[in-house]
Amino acid sequence: MERYDIAVIGTGPAGLEAAITAKVRNKSVLLLGNKGSSDKVSKAHTIQNYLGLPNVSGEDMAKAFLDHAKGMGIEITEDKVNAVYSMGQYFAIQCHGGDYEASSVIVAAGMSAMKPFAGEMENLGRGVSYCATCDAALYKGRTAIIVAYDAEDEEEAEFLAERAEKVYYLPQYDYAGNLGGNIEVSVDVKPSSIAYNDGVATLETDKGTFKADGIFILRQQIAPSQLVPGLQMDGNHIGVDRSMATNIKGLFACGDITGAPYQYIKAAGEGNVAALSAVSYLAELKKAQN
Amino acid sequence: MERYDIAVIGTGPAGLEAAITAKVRNKSVLLLGNKGSSDKVSKAHTIQNYLGLPNVSGEDMAKAFLDHAKGMGIEITEDKVNAVYSMGQYFAIQCHGGDYEASSVIVAAGMSAMKPFAGEMENLGRGVSYCATCDAALYKGRTAIIVAYDAEDEEEAEFLAERAEKVYYLPQYDYAGNLGGNIEVSVDVKPSSIAYNDGVATLETDKGTFKADGIFILRQQIAPSQLVPGLQMDGNHIGVDRSMATNIKGLFACGDITGAPYQYIKAAGEGNVAALSAVSYLAELKKAQN
Repeated sequence: MERYDIAVIGTGPAGLEAAITAKVRNKSVLLLGNKGSSDKVSKAHTIQNYLGLPNVSGEDMAKAFLDHAKGMGIEITEDKVNAVYSMGQYFAIQCHGGDYEASSVIVAAGMSAMKPFAGEMENLGRGVSYCATCDAALYKGRTAIIVAYDAEDEEEAEFLAERAEKVYYLPQYDYAGNLGGNIEVSVDVKPSSIAYNDGVATLETDKGTFKADGIFILRQQIAPSQLVPGLQMDGNHIGVDRSMATNIKGLFACGDITGAPYQYIKAAGEGNVAALSAVSYLAELKKAQN
Repeated sequence: MERYDIAVIGTGPAGLEAAITAKVRNKSVLLLGNKGSSDKVSKAHTIQNYLGLPNVSGEDMAKAFLDHAKGMGIEITEDKVNAVYSMGQYFAIQCHGGDYEASSVIVAAGMSAMKPFAGEMENLGRGVSYCATCDAALYKGRTAIIVAYDAEDEEEAEFLAERAEKVYYLPQYDYAGNLGGNIEVSVDVKPSSIAYNDGVATLETDKGTFKADGIFILRQQIAPSQLVPGLQMDGNHIGVDRSMATNIKGLFACGDITGAPYQYIKAAGEGNVAALSAVSYLAELKKAQN
């Protein structure tokens, strides 16, 4: 498997800046995220205080950022990250679409406004999981509920349904798909809480109760403490020092995920620092290996 | 005297971003620096990693930054700061061209590559000073040496010469002025060291020894520890936390002066954070006063 120098998770200003700075420093970069930057950028009305881009619309700012990255030959890999594991000398990055390796990782995944369902966090890793493709092998002959937030998740449902006996698919977006067979789609169903008892996962909704062997919640984004086992948090944010280092050697964080103020230029500035810290870390790592 | 909400010292990316963010937050801003941004910006060759401004020349970047500030009605006051004093509820800012007051201060003065002369730091406030206009009153009937780095300093020499008996002027730049009278100009003289004994300041140079009651070194920039009495340093940099707060309440710092990496986007990001921290401080201050 190709081992990248630096994996950057997130394509908002922090992630894009980290990627271009890493590229300037001649590092191989895996940039995981969204080809449209981030919703928080592209859907913003007008930004007044991103120095150098006066009075810019979110759409134009996203375009300027993406053009900058593209012009430097940086590609965005559209995949959702399920977990990042420190393996000592490198990191294993488990995504919905496959696995990757990198010598260092920069988490720039932003802050999700999404609140977990009641019972979600308590049952993570037991009845609840965030990646259907990752766990599909465990679902041979079993049943699963998928709470989905994006049309792209339909592919994941189909993959899971090849193994599972039955899949309940609850789209939380405007569903226009054609899932069928052993996938039962229920639209306009709002989940409220999750329980897990005696091997049965129960999802309460405004349209009644769903039961299965497990529940997959395909969030666009998952809590950073769940993303990276052992990561030290500072409240809801990843704890970092001024070099953007976390408590895990070789893993850095930047942007909204490290705390307020939630501002574009602050995020970009931190992305720059995180990338240069990762570059220093790689130099140390190389020295230690020689 | 008008008391500004926020005084920003420095017109590189950190200072300009701090000023525009403060302005967005409806604060009155005194921006002290250079109408051409900073030399470090305007003279840079090409910058590749300022997200949103791909492959930009330093000159174009400085223009983009200055246009942004100008478009928001921010004016730059061209003056050199000699000292910042915390007065409890406000700050007194002593400049070569006059004095100012502000409720909070953001130091974004960059890093000077200039090394002090041997003996300079030891004799600061005794035989050595950084502002001739500030101390002119003390020089009635006395003699002074001025080491100058900019044609603008000639005005300061003339002001001092109105009081002093004799001024030795040693320009360290291409001198094309017409100073005369009791000002003796010596070009191409390289100072090396300073001593101060029994009330006599001695400047050793490659062209011999100069003696006077005091020596003025009109640096473009002075060491931050000299700029703000009591300011806690972290090596050569101002010590700050992630909110860009220093050890002095109401005084913040950002950009190169707070440490590496010396990068434009990092500096701008910190300027944003410093401004928002100053805004929070002003809100607290107002609450405490009510």
